[in-house]
Amino acid sequence: MAEHSLWAFARALRQAVEDRETDHIAALLDDEVDWAIFGPIDMFPFLGARRGKEAVIDVLLQIADNFRINKFDREVTVLGDDTASTLVKCSLTANDNEKSISLRLANFARFSKGRLAKLRVVMDTFDLVEQTLGHPINLPSISR
Amino acid sequence: MAEHSLWAFARALRQAVEDRETDHIAALLDDEVDWAIFGPIDMFPFLGARRGKEAVIDVLLQIADNFRINKFDREVTVLGDDTASTLVKCSLTANDNEKSISLRLANFARFSKGRLAKLRVVMDTFDLVEQTLGHPINLPSISR
Repeated sequence: MAEHSLWAFARALRQAVEDRETDHIAALLDDEVDWAIFGPIDMFPFLGARRGKEAVIDVLLQIADNFRINKFDREVTVLGDDTASTLVKCSLTANDNEKSISLRLANFARFSKGRLAKLRVVMDTFDLVEQTLGHPINLPSISR
Repeated sequence: MAEHSLWAFARALRQAVEDRETDHIAALLDDEVDWAIFGPIDMFPFLGARRGKEAVIDVLLQIADNFRINKFDREVTVLGDDTASTLVKCSLTANDNEKSISLRLANFARFSKGRLAKLRVVMDTFDLVEQTLGHPINLPSISR
């Protein structure tokens, strides 16, 4: 049985973000890849929607500019035929101020001919914002 | 081929939240279910971790107290043998102030003998907080 497309993609993604080595990932992105990481783009301009290989490689290099990955723990993996979803816990260090950030990424990928055609990433962005600011944001309780 | 455990579970979940009818969901929750919806529990006390069937049914009724579901659109579904993940776009109305809230839920479920044994839910909580407050939270840009 051939290896699921997820694994080569995941390795190439780490190479891009950790080592700024983008040749592998370039070969594994569909030319018209449909990409979105949901979150506050005012604070994190590398979040949001992108279309196409070049735009996605740009985003990965921006992420590499801003963070180093310390740990990467895949808590859940669900594999379909040409689809995959993972829940990944990451520990990052912000290059700007050496702050440690811990976050969970929920990833939904669709592959076409072994290349990433679509990606959606969801994360607990309120927690990410508080960790980045370094202090809690005061919130009212809304619950009945 | 038997129906995947996800589908009966998803129907029972909606019955619980929409109609406060919890008999079906009670039969589809493992007694020791391990449950977590990641998000700011100070603002939304029904988020967070729960253990066991009764605690989870309590949470569902709290969600039912606070929100009505208007629309529910499953954008991505990935099915494993005893696992499933979905990316669901929901439109809700807050009962408190009739505010409309739109959010995406990333769900990772593991079933054991047809019952939910583990659930992890991730969402764009910063967006949820801003929608609930009804105004944006001012953020600095951190990007290089």
